[in-house]
Amino acid sequence: MNISNLGEFRLIQKLSKIVPCQPSTIRGIGDDAAVLPFKKDKYLLFTTDMLIEGAHFLKSMGAQRIGRKALACSISDIAAMGGVPTNAVVSVGLPKHTSVKFVTDLYKGLSQIAKEFRVSIVGGDTTQADQLIINIALLGQVTKKYLVTRNGAKPGDWIFVSGPLGGSLKSGRHLTFTPRVAMAQFLVKQYRPSAMMDISDGLAGDLNHILTASKTGAKLWEEAIPCYQGVTLPQALSDGEDFELLFTLPEKVAERLMHWQFKQKRFYFYPVGVMTGNPKQKINAQSYTHF
Amino acid sequence: MNISNLGEFRLIQKLSKIVPCQPSTIRGIGDDAAVLPFKKDKYLLFTTDMLIEGAHFLKSMGAQRIGRKALACSISDIAAMGGVPTNAVVSVGLPKHTSVKFVTDLYKGLSQIAKEFRVSIVGGDTTQADQLIINIALLGQVTKKYLVTRNGAKPGDWIFVSGPLGGSLKSGRHLTFTPRVAMAQFLVKQYRPSAMMDISDGLAGDLNHILTASKTGAKLWEEAIPCYQGVTLPQALSDGEDFELLFTLPEKVAERLMHWQFKQKRFYFYPVGVMTGNPKQKINAQSYTHF
Repeated sequence: MNISNLGEFRLIQKLSKIVPCQPSTIRGIGDDAAVLPFKKDKYLLFTTDMLIEGAHFLKSMGAQRIGRKALACSISDIAAMGGVPTNAVVSVGLPKHTSVKFVTDLYKGLSQIAKEFRVSIVGGDTTQADQLIINIALLGQVTKKYLVTRNGAKPGDWIFVSGPLGGSLKSGRHLTFTPRVAMAQFLVKQYRPSAMMDISDGLAGDLNHILTASKTGAKLWEEAIPCYQGVTLPQALSDGEDFELLFTLPEKVAERLMHWQFKQKRFYFYPVGVMTGNPKQKINAQSYTHF
Repeated sequence: MNISNLGEFRLIQKLSKIVPCQPSTIRGIGDDAAVLPFKKDKYLLFTTDMLIEGAHFLKSMGAQRIGRKALACSISDIAAMGGVPTNAVVSVGLPKHTSVKFVTDLYKGLSQIAKEFRVSIVGGDTTQADQLIINIALLGQVTKKYLVTRNGAKPGDWIFVSGPLGGSLKSGRHLTFTPRVAMAQFLVKQYRPSAMMDISDGLAGDLNHILTASKTGAKLWEEAIPCYQGVTLPQALSDGEDFELLFTLPEKVAERLMHWQFKQKRFYFYPVGVMTGNPKQKINAQSYTHF
């Protein structure tokens, strides 16, 4: 059997059973970032993302924007755990005839968003490849009481997203999106989501990850799902690469958030459904997959 | 200008001037691993390595051995700083028709060496690519007083390597080598090397990195350089992928080590030269380069 037949998620499940994990690990494979021991009141977060020409970007999209995207994806993962990013290492695979200008532009894009989010780039590796490849590994830290994982949602919790979904690849938003660190920090400090992740594979597929981890089901309120302009509901559910936050709040907290946001208008979070006690209630829609 | 004309080391120099680094970073780009704040008596180490089919391995070498090598290279980097490895994240780029068996074997190889060195694999990313790609990002920790960097060598220090050099790719040793964690731990605890790194690009090229970082020159005792069986001196100097330790010790400490090792025979370290005060005294031999 080859990996296309098996599918990305079942492959990851299989692999995560092979790999070793020491008992000191707070949380390993299966969330936006790993959670590791760090300081008295803080955990260390650790995540990685590999972006490949053709699958995640085309060279014609511009080196600076490609570099920016690579780091932005990882920052989004740290944000979704309730953390702030700190240090990154960057590996690049470069085709032989890549111009020096292209590579320096790539690093300028990377560096710009790194500065914006106070991330240090502390190491890397460069090697030759047939396609352009960028791999980011990013550390972050999270105050222990603010850590949010995927497995804390309860039946009755409301489901929220942090912005309109769909059409990210087509519109180019996947290159220019702002990782939701500020929104996530606001949420973990003020409202303590019961579960959270970022939407990289589409609302439908990613919500199913929360359902599996939390052993719950969900009902989506289709008419409430915010679609990006010109995007259909199936696209909003499945396109992927939105990099918005997907989170759940107990009903009373959800109502408090709704009340606040109508008055303040600082951020706007969209309620899109409710968790149920029936784990068989999955979301049926195509999820973005890499194979 | 393209990257092949510029060369890998000058490219890295150029890029390291672009990227941002927060003042909290103890040591960023330019060593085997980055050094970051961690605990009262310990630093966090952070390194990354990208291995690509064709450049670093062939599929025919066997999935388990490829997986093993990927992690072994990074463990070697942590060892060379005086540290022990702790947690890794693994990204893989897989051609569409890769068999599930190949991928699980790759992870078995990775997991075996991870267990051997008590490394937890805590996360990863899988994506589709034209070539097989493995990127490892590895964390480690080092007791502050045992940290060794590349920039502490002084004129008069003796230069050592931890084993015979050359022919690693040809003999297959680059797939099966043991990262020198035990040797490095012994050295930092008993002899405190003034500078240390692992030999990945060949003794000549890598020693020049220590010379640049330490602002020293060096003389090699050609007849003392341990060549792997069937390997010529130029090959021992330039082949690369030895993953032996290269380190320097003040003369008196070097003599103490020599005395000890003739008696104990637990480890054997080879003296290969001496540091000089003339920074122009570089090692003239071809260094392994990826472009």
